[in-house]
Amino acid sequence: MFLTRTEYDRGVNTFSPEGRLFQVEYAIEAIKLGSTAIGVKTKEGVVLAVEKRITSPLLEPSSVEKIMEIDDHIGCAMSGLIADARTLVEHARVETQNHRFSYGEPMTVESTTQALCDLALRFGEGDEESMSRPFGVSLLIAGHDENGPSLYYTDPSGTFWQCNAKAIGSGSEGADSSLQEQFNKDLSLLEAETIAVSILKQVMEEKVTPNNVDIAKVAPAYHLYSPQEVEAVIARL
Amino acid sequence: MFLTRTEYDRGVNTFSPEGRLFQVEYAIEAIKLGSTAIGVKTKEGVVLAVEKRITSPLLEPSSVEKIMEIDDHIGCAMSGLIADARTLVEHARVETQNHRFSYGEPMTVESTTQALCDLALRFGEGDEESMSRPFGVSLLIAGHDENGPSLYYTDPSGTFWQCNAKAIGSGSEGADSSLQEQFNKDLSLLEAETIAVSILKQVMEEKVTPNNVDIAKVAPAYHLYSPQEVEAVIARL
Amino acid sequence: MFLTRTEYDRGVNTFSPEGRLFQVEYAIEAIKLGSTAIGVKTKEGVVLAVEKRITSPLLEPSSVEKIMEIDDHIGCAMSGLIADARTLVEHARVETQNHRFSYGEPMTVESTTQALCDLALRFGEGDEESMSRPFGVSLLIAGHDENGPSLYYTDPSGTFWQCNAKAIGSGSEGADSSLQEQFNKDLSLLEAETIAVSILKQVMEEKVTPNNVDIAKVAPAYHLYSPQEVEAVIARL
Amino acid sequence: MFLTRTEYDRGVNTFSPEGRLFQVEYAIEAIKLGSTAIGVKTKEGVVLAVEKRITSPLLEPSSVEKIMEIDDHIGCAMSGLIADARTLVEHARVETQNHRFSYGEPMTVESTTQALCDLALRFGEGDEESMSRPFGVSLLIAGHDENGPSLYYTDPSGTFWQCNAKAIGSGSEGADSSLQEQFNKDLSLLEAETIAVSILKQVMEEKVTPNNVDIAKVAPAYHLYSPQEVEAVIARL
Amino acid sequence: MFLTRTEYDRGVNTFSPEGRLFQVEYAIEAIKLGSTAIGVKTKEGVVLAVEKRITSPLLEPSSVEKIMEIDDHIGCAMSGLIADARTLVEHARVETQNHRFSYGEPMTVESTTQALCDLALRFGEGDEESMSRPFGVSLLIAGHDENGPSLYYTDPSGTFWQCNAKAIGSGSEGADSSLQEQFNKDLSLLEAETIAVSILKQVMEEKVTPNNVDIAKVAPAYHLYSPQEVEAVIARL
Amino acid sequence: MFLTRTEYDRGVNTFSPEGRLFQVEYAIEAIKLGSTAIGVKTKEGVVLAVEKRITSPLLEPSSVEKIMEIDDHIGCAMSGLIADARTLVEHARVETQNHRFSYGEPMTVESTTQALCDLALRFGEGDEESMSRPFGVSLLIAGHDENGPSLYYTDPSGTFWQCNAKAIGSGSEGADSSLQEQFNKDLSLLEAETIAVSILKQVMEEKVTPNNVDIAKVAPAYHLYSPQEVEAVIARL
Amino acid sequence: MFLTRTEYDRGVNTFSPEGRLFQVEYAIEAIKLGSTAIGVKTKEGVVLAVEKRITSPLLEPSSVEKIMEIDDHIGCAMSGLIADARTLVEHARVETQNHRFSYGEPMTVESTTQALCDLALRFGEGDEESMSRPFGVSLLIAGHDENGPSLYYTDPSGTFWQCNAKAIGSGSEGADSSLQEQFNKDLSLLEAETIAVSILKQVMEEKVTPNNVDIAKVAPAYHLYSPQEVEAVIARL
Repeated sequence: MFLTRTEYDRGVNTFSPEGRLFQVEYAIEAIKLGSTAIGVKTKEGVVLAVEKRITSPLLEPSSVEKIMEIDDHIGCAMSGLIADARTLVEHARVETQNHRFSYGEPMTVESTTQALCDLALRFGEGDEESMSRPFGVSLLIAGHDENGPSLYYTDPSGTFWQCNAKAIGSGSEGADSSLQEQFNKDLSLLEAETIAVSILKQVMEEKVTPNNVDIAKVAPAYHLYSPQEVEAVIARL
Repeated sequence: MFLTRTEYDRGVNTFSPEGRLFQVEYAIEAIKLGSTAIGVKTKEGVVLAVEKRITSPLLEPSSVEKIMEIDDHIGCAMSGLIADARTLVEHARVETQNHRFSYGEPMTVESTTQALCDLALRFGEGDEESMSRPFGVSLLIAGHDENGPSLYYTDPSGTFWQCNAKAIGSGSEGADSSLQEQFNKDLSLLEAETIAVSILKQVMEEKVTPNNVDIAKVAPAYHLYSPQEVEAVIARL
Repeated sequence: MFLTRTEYDRGVNTFSPEGRLFQVEYAIEAIKLGSTAIGVKTKEGVVLAVEKRITSPLLEPSSVEKIMEIDDHIGCAMSGLIADARTLVEHARVETQNHRFSYGEPMTVESTTQALCDLALRFGEGDEESMSRPFGVSLLIAGHDENGPSLYYTDPSGTFWQCNAKAIGSGSEGADSSLQEQFNKDLSLLEAETIAVSILKQVMEEKVTPNNVDIAKVAPAYHLYSPQEVEAVIARL
Repeated sequence: MFLTRTEYDRGVNTFSPEGRLFQVEYAIEAIKLGSTAIGVKTKEGVVLAVEKRITSPLLEPSSVEKIMEIDDHIGCAMSGLIADARTLVEHARVETQNHRFSYGEPMTVESTTQALCDLALRFGEGDEESMSRPFGVSLLIAGHDENGPSLYYTDPSGTFWQCNAKAIGSGSEGADSSLQEQFNKDLSLLEAETIAVSILKQVMEEKVTPNNVDIAKVAPAYHLYSPQEVEAVIARL
Repeated sequence: MFLTRTEYDRGVNTFSPEGRLFQVEYAIEAIKLGSTAIGVKTKEGVVLAVEKRITSPLLEPSSVEKIMEIDDHIGCAMSGLIADARTLVEHARVETQNHRFSYGEPMTVESTTQALCDLALRFGEGDEESMSRPFGVSLLIAGHDENGPSLYYTDPSGTFWQCNAKAIGSGSEGADSSLQEQFNKDLSLLEAETIAVSILKQVMEEKVTPNNVDIAKVAPAYHLYSPQEVEAVIARL
Repeated sequence: MFLTRTEYDRGVNTFSPEGRLFQVEYAIEAIKLGSTAIGVKTKEGVVLAVEKRITSPLLEPSSVEKIMEIDDHIGCAMSGLIADARTLVEHARVETQNHRFSYGEPMTVESTTQALCDLALRFGEGDEESMSRPFGVSLLIAGHDENGPSLYYTDPSGTFWQCNAKAIGSGSEGADSSLQEQFNKDLSLLEAETIAVSILKQVMEEKVTPNNVDIAKVAPAYHLYSPQEVEAVIARL
Repeated sequence: MFLTRTEYDRGVNTFSPEGRLFQVEYAIEAIKLGSTAIGVKTKEGVVLAVEKRITSPLLEPSSVEKIMEIDDHIGCAMSGLIADARTLVEHARVETQNHRFSYGEPMTVESTTQALCDLALRFGEGDEESMSRPFGVSLLIAGHDENGPSLYYTDPSGTFWQCNAKAIGSGSEGADSSLQEQFNKDLSLLEAETIAVSILKQVMEEKVTPNNVDIAKVAPAYHLYSPQEVEAVIARL
């Protein structure tokens, strides 16, 4: 059975007899190996928290970027292949800057997410910008526009969903259950911070410190927490 | 036998010895895994109703779009790969806008459907716009033009049919039987709403709510029902 | 033996050791699965009659088009993949319009047929207009030009023949025998109508009705029969 | 052994370990399946005679063209895939017209033959004009130029030879033996006609009639015989 | 198991069922076969030290370049395929020169590293500049810009990390352990030199000499040590 | 063993584990199947003699060209695929004419040979002029320029050698031995003619006649012998 | 094991699981089959000596060129596929001429070597100038520029080294050992000649004569020895 499945991998973007796209499914496996990231939406804004795997004490923790700014009003957390995520984020940054230049106003969070997914969908097409394989990364896109705060979740198939809260990466299964228990629509941003980091703490294999956790919020502007601010959140747990 | 069939998959668009195009058949399998969608045509207009699979309570139901507007007078329901459907709908939107701009009148529903199928047919050709594989999606296209209301059904082979009523997706077999029993040409739009949602209810595995069902009509303009309007239809069952 | 043949399918347009082109032969198989179509030439004009498979009572019979107009003086009946046939017919329509525009006169039926076959022959060549596989369709092309009425038959190899009468599709074998018995050069158009539909009736599995049969004539202009006109022919049987 | 040979078919134009080009050999097999054609050169001009396979009495015999005019002074008979032959003949027609236009004189028969073979040789090269496989056709090219009458024979490898007499197609082996016995350089055109058709008669499985045989001569202009003229030749046998 | 993995190598840039990119992993193996290189960052600047494998006494040691200058303020040490590294370094030199020309200021070390990784990530894409396979090389990039000294480590996947100290190549495992023990943020440049070369000495199989070791520093300008300067460092051990 | 070798044929121009290029070796096999050709250099000029295989008495012997003129001062004999040789000769003719036009003097024999080999070497590169496989032909290039007479021998790998005498084709092994015995630097052109044809006679399976042997000399101009001249040489044996 | 390795050959430029590039390793095998070449650097200049395999007494020894001039101040000896070497040398000649034209001074020996290796590295990339496989040749590049005499050695991977003395080809192993014993930095050019030819004599299977050995020096200009000069060196042994 397994051998038969491998037959379908050679064309990077072809259906199997059951109607499945294996390269996309395999890319999703790449994300299950990635570090955990959590997003929580509140009326005041959106909180993103990520685990950072510091494989050696000689690594500079700040150079392991798992949360990145797309525009003043949009940031994203990622899980999977970091180099792939950088390409997607760079693409989104160009799109949002072009939009500001052309229309004199910020791009909406949904349009930005759609632009990212358009690029992700077209893998294997031989386009200038697209990859020869799916992007091996999932993103949690947090933003704030005329419709208020919003949180989007994208996967390697180029599909996206809007969420109230979502976890991705190796610990996503347990983290999603905890989020469903603890989330409600009236959370304050402060409570969301606490919930996100406390759930991250549960799924991480080591002690939570400012070195191995990054936090950011979009409320309404993107802000990446300083080690002191992360320390303060951890202290509240 | 199965092994032999796999030999033909590698060229995405080649005939098997029996004269079959397997990639198209496999794409049709992708649709059988999709959520159910139903369309019913009446003299007053066309009703579309779809099941939405909300896999987590943290998902924003309104962000799971299974019914989309193409133009003022055309909408469509979809089953299969949502990212593929978005590409087709985006293509159709550009075509209908271009037509309005060039000819100063709306594009007919049949021409719009033909334009979608032309794109779907040319998979594997290496064109700028086409995909390297079939689009893994079926559409129910509801519209209203100089010929009155009409309902089209498209499949991944690029073929289309005009229908009085049609179901697609995982529950399509049972739903089609029910439609044949309950449809007649003198249905009012209100009756069509009731029939579409009651049949959807039969084939869905969970309770029908405004969260997991979307309804739209083209009568003669496209209108997506608000949660309150959906609630009202459900209440009538 | 069968396994060996499959080795040759991968290049879409290569010879087998016996000098055969399998993709063309497989495309011909696709036509043997198609609905039956019949053409009969008389001195007064040409008659085309086709079976329409209406798989569901909810389908609009008029939307299942198996006979299409190419120009005022040329029409065609088809069997096989309808989406492929649409591409060929669209190509022929452009060619005949271009010819009228460039030369101020209608294109001859043979030139139109040759233009269709040139496109069909070049599958797998990577041209802009050509397909990556053979067109899975046979056409009966009926026309009337300065040489009087004519009937052409094309197959997926890009070859064409001129005929007095011809059947294509799943019932073609039996229908061809009947045509040989009943055809003579002095048939009136009315007799040709009767012969075509009566033979279609023999090879179809269900009762003949205006819903599942289409008739057209080119005498000398293309005319697709209305349901009433079809009904009248059936009544004559 | 056979299995090993199949390994070499995938590249359409690569050598086998024994230094053979299998796709060319397989294309030659395609010709062995074709109808027989015969050419005979005399001092007065060249005669071509071909078998036409009329598979159904409903086919128009004149539409089965196995002898075609290239220019006023050149014609050719063919065996193999007719659609391929049409492409070659169309190419040669353009070449000879271009030559007349550029140089104000007819193209020689050898140059025309060379132009055809240049196209045939370059299969699999991805050029605009060339095919992705060998042309599955042999030609007998009869012409008359400043060097008097000449007869050329081409095969799918792009090689050509000048002959006094030559047969191609399924009956070529027997026909060639008969030609060697009966040919001499002092034949009159009338005798050549009789010899060509009488040999064709030997190798054909059915009775020779104006319906299943075509005759043409280049002496010094190309002329395709009318059914009456063919009848007259048959009557002389 | 091994056989199954080989199935995935043919597409140079496709996921395996476990979500892995084998060509990248195999390229990393190429680096494990390479000579060892070590980088250490201090407040005064960065030190790079590399092993040079002089396979024959007839080789000119100075022609085996394992440390190269990118710009006045950036140098790099490499392990893996030297020809690949040359291509990357050449690319980086052009980028930094272009930056100086366009903006009148040196490129930052991070931007330079990012430019190198962008090129490395896009292998297999068919771009003008990119390779058809991953670059089989890791780099330690030492630089000094407005943010002070910095040390980056890149791998064939196009990912990079900022480090305080790092070893690459065949001896990297043991060297990294030693670096973790001996590194602290208050090292002087002189101490860093001593540590780097003493650790190199541990992992090399032969005696350390100015012939088989190269040392460079960026403090704040790039400087490759002369044999006398290398001799002096060795003497201090 | 044999099976393993076939693995390497698919890429037309890749090395085997032993460092061999199989497609080139297979092309060389094609030449071993070809007719024999012999070249002999004297101080007075170069003689070329070839066997012509006249497979049927109906073939025009003069149309089987195995010796062709490249320029006034250069001719060549060939063995292998004639259509391939024609392409090479046509290329060389264009090169020598261009050289005359650009520099007002004839191209040297070595430069002409180099130009032919450049084209032969680049098979499989997808260039406009090059083939997708090696040219299956060897040439003996005879010429006369400012350095006096010269004889070059080329093979499908694009390599060439200058020779005093050389045989190619199916009888080359025996013919080369005889040439080594009989050749000396003081041969007259007349003696060279006799030696070449007498050795050809030994290796040919049938009687030598002006019909199945062609002779040419470059002394200092290219001259192809008339049947009478060939007859005279044969008579001298 | 062997079978598994063959799996990796199909992509011409992909890594094996052990991080190896097999096509490069196979090309290196091609060189081990080649004739031996030796280079020795002295303060006065560089000497190159090569074995020439004269497979037939009818071959013109001077046409077997294994040492070629690149520019006045650079020459090279080669082992492996001669046609490949010619392409590389031709490329280098254009580069050095362009450099003279653009900068009015000779290109350095290192830059010339780097230019050759850049071309060699990019095999399989589909560039205009690059090959579809590695160049199957090693070069010994001897030159003299502002830095005095230098000797470079290149291999099919596109890597190069500077050497004092080096042997390549089938006898390189034994020759390299002898060179290590006999080389010292104070050799005169005359002594280097003697050493190079005496070592070549050891590894060659036949007697050394001016026919089967070529010698050249760059001191400071390139000079290929006449047979008399070669004879003189041999006489000194």
